[in-house]
Amino acid sequence: MANVLRNSAKFGCSGVLSQLSIHSRHGRECVSPCFSLQQRNNSTSPKIKVDLDNSTGVAVLRMQSPPVNSLSLDFLTEFCINLEKLEMDKSCRGLIITSTLSKVFSAGLDIMEMYGKSPERCGEFWKAVQEMWLKLYGSNMATIAAINGSSPAGGCLMSIGCDYRIMADNPRYSIGLNETQLGIVAPFWFKDTLVNTVGNRAAELSLELGLLYSAPDALKIGLVDQLVPEDQVLSTAQDTMSKWLVVPDHARQITKSMMRKQTIDKLLSNREADITNFVSFITKDSIQRSLRMYLEMLKSRKA
Amino acid sequence: MANVLRNSAKFGCSGVLSQLSIHSRHGRECVSPCFSLQQRNNSTSPKIKVDLDNSTGVAVLRMQSPPVNSLSLDFLTEFCINLEKLEMDKSCRGLIITSTLSKVFSAGLDIMEMYGKSPERCGEFWKAVQEMWLKLYGSNMATIAAINGSSPAGGCLMSIGCDYRIMADNPRYSIGLNETQLGIVAPFWFKDTLVNTVGNRAAELSLELGLLYSAPDALKIGLVDQLVPEDQVLSTAQDTMSKWLVVPDHARQITKSMMRKQTIDKLLSNREADITNFVSFITKDSIQRSLRMYLEMLKSRKA
Amino acid sequence: MANVLRNSAKFGCSGVLSQLSIHSRHGRECVSPCFSLQQRNNSTSPKIKVDLDNSTGVAVLRMQSPPVNSLSLDFLTEFCINLEKLEMDKSCRGLIITSTLSKVFSAGLDIMEMYGKSPERCGEFWKAVQEMWLKLYGSNMATIAAINGSSPAGGCLMSIGCDYRIMADNPRYSIGLNETQLGIVAPFWFKDTLVNTVGNRAAELSLELGLLYSAPDALKIGLVDQLVPEDQVLSTAQDTMSKWLVVPDHARQITKSMMRKQTIDKLLSNREADITNFVSFITKDSIQRSLRMYLEMLKSRKA
Repeated sequence: MANVLRNSAKFGCSGVLSQLSIHSRHGRECVSPCFSLQQRNNSTSPKIKVDLDNSTGVAVLRMQSPPVNSLSLDFLTEFCINLEKLEMDKSCRGLIITSTLSKVFSAGLDIMEMYGKSPERCGEFWKAVQEMWLKLYGSNMATIAAINGSSPAGGCLMSIGCDYRIMADNPRYSIGLNETQLGIVAPFWFKDTLVNTVGNRAAELSLELGLLYSAPDALKIGLVDQLVPEDQVLSTAQDTMSKWLVVPDHARQITKSMMRKQTIDKLLSNREADITNFVSFITKDSIQRSLRMYLEMLKSRKA
Repeated sequence: MANVLRNSAKFGCSGVLSQLSIHSRHGRECVSPCFSLQQRNNSTSPKIKVDLDNSTGVAVLRMQSPPVNSLSLDFLTEFCINLEKLEMDKSCRGLIITSTLSKVFSAGLDIMEMYGKSPERCGEFWKAVQEMWLKLYGSNMATIAAINGSSPAGGCLMSIGCDYRIMADNPRYSIGLNETQLGIVAPFWFKDTLVNTVGNRAAELSLELGLLYSAPDALKIGLVDQLVPEDQVLSTAQDTMSKWLVVPDHARQITKSMMRKQTIDKLLSNREADITNFVSFITKDSIQRSLRMYLEMLKSRKA
Repeated sequence: MANVLRNSAKFGCSGVLSQLSIHSRHGRECVSPCFSLQQRNNSTSPKIKVDLDNSTGVAVLRMQSPPVNSLSLDFLTEFCINLEKLEMDKSCRGLIITSTLSKVFSAGLDIMEMYGKSPERCGEFWKAVQEMWLKLYGSNMATIAAINGSSPAGGCLMSIGCDYRIMADNPRYSIGLNETQLGIVAPFWFKDTLVNTVGNRAAELSLELGLLYSAPDALKIGLVDQLVPEDQVLSTAQDTMSKWLVVPDHARQITKSMMRKQTIDKLLSNREADITNFVSFITKDSIQRSLRMYLEMLKSRKA
């Protein structure tokens, strides 16, 4: 954890909203951090593909929503429905989450769900974000994130909601809860999950500075558990899962609940207040102005 | 903590109850993990030997109950009586716990105390396990575990109940709370003690998978504090103890209580419920069947 | 964290009150740990010098109270007044704390404030210690400790009250909450701050043994974040601060509050009891006798 600032952490590829020009020097490698702009194609094609291998009891959930697997309301709804199905399927014991896209696992929450939307719609969206985390962090399945690309903000939340994290050994890929960089504050349950994963001090530094960690640096602070060559992320996840499934399910499940119940209960008993907080923050004029600037910057970069 | 799964942790030498055949490939080095089968010799010879050096104020408690220092009701009772005596002896300021047996510190809870016993007897046994931990974790003495052999499950609990852990630098020796591997769940106070020792994330991985760590791996995650050559474990413990005793007793004791009181109080205020939980779990038909299978496996391996 | 005792921690340069002779072998390099003896010069010259750079929004607070920046009531009062001024100055966003003295950042609480003083005066002093911590740990400014010398006890508390710690890479400089070595117990909020910084187990070892860590060892356990050559401590702090100030203030402040509020509230709601505890402890005959011995030792060493 030492020397995080000096050696290992990068200040996102975005800088802050007020410093959008920083973006230009990063070029095409850069995944829009924190908020992402999803193509509006009104497509009804599924954003998520699930394959359950009945012989092993392991499902692979592939996120396939170009360009960056943004967590839109539609995406989150589809994600939760799939998770629920697998959870109730007695033959499914393990879940691997990965991405079909090149260079990105998930770029996080979809900015379009937060810009120019009604408070009701914003609240609905936030509830879906909560639901994704509640289902994942409390899943009875053994869950492994096969992180084959960058994973900022909401993508990082999804990753640390799993039981184990395997990331592509590529220093260009980054992961972290970088909300602060954009003037946004990660809510308490993002924070709690991060503290549970990397400890209080690393979480404090990480959140106060909105740090994005390169894959090697993420390994150093324990934000991911293992790095493997990019083409072995999924196969390693499969191998690792087979070890997790040696453990009797009920003992693993009770143990997992013992470790995570308190953190989950804290959101459950503050869910409405958390939604109210988010909505009142995101609908502020100043924040909406910032989002518009950010949006225009994303669009211009695309062009 | 990174790469625990890949490099450093072993899935016990037992595998799970349902996979008993795994045992065969480990041969004679292997200490029965988690539960152990004690010889029934009805011996009245002491299972524990205590030597108090009045010139230094340091007592050495030697566990000498072959073959594997199983924590039977008799053993635990004797252990607690000795601990209590030392605690009340003003001339005793430090306690070193070690084993006279080759290759094993303690193999953990005695399976015979849990198989085919009445609920009353099971409850009495569990109360003795609680008592051992309460006395050790809250001891006013400076306590050092001189871990000169393997130390799974209850043996690990005893170790992390001390103030400091010195282990023999032998990769064949392992330590960990591997209960999950056998379909058993470590109770909340085992978990709390482990979290206090290695942090939340290492404890989560360790408990969900029931990991046994080789001595070098145990050092890496902070499950033990120091490795020394096997023949220097006790002498190093003596040297280390002399450093602990430089600190004024009352300041060390108040500080220790400040660090551990909350964890101890949690069990004290849930003691009866914890016993009830254990008894209702262990007397289940399914668990008793598993224990019988495990028992037969241990016997056949012995033969 | 492993091997702390063996390799990395030193038992202060003081040993305990009962072993004052230990001091002699350390010579002049040694900063009086834990409690320090301030020159009584009744000077009205400021003990603290503050320079605010309006172009950067960064203030440098220099402690300049020879010989060892003891935290006397006067010093603490001056410190808090300066902190409060900066906190209310909208143009000040970041604070760097450092020392003008050679070899010492701050040697901690001034023993003269605790020896032979009335309970009322002792209470007033302790309240000022609390105030220093409350203001610093909860500051809205980004705070960096530029630790250019030894920093035991109260000096360590001041350091871990900041957001980030840069220390001179000199193994002769040490830092730690070494109160236990002198028969004193660090209060719960010292403990909480240390646990938040280095985790539970490192804090437990550190506090039970009253360990002082050399700069390299402090880095290993995360007690400081970064080591740099002695002549670059302040310039590195300036560079680091400029990175902290890239983050939008309000997001950083809300995040910091989310991380620290619980710890701060615990003292706020137990403030009077904590003062009563301290006063009743420090005014005990036995403790006063110990302080007198310690005082005489410090004086004789000086002569």
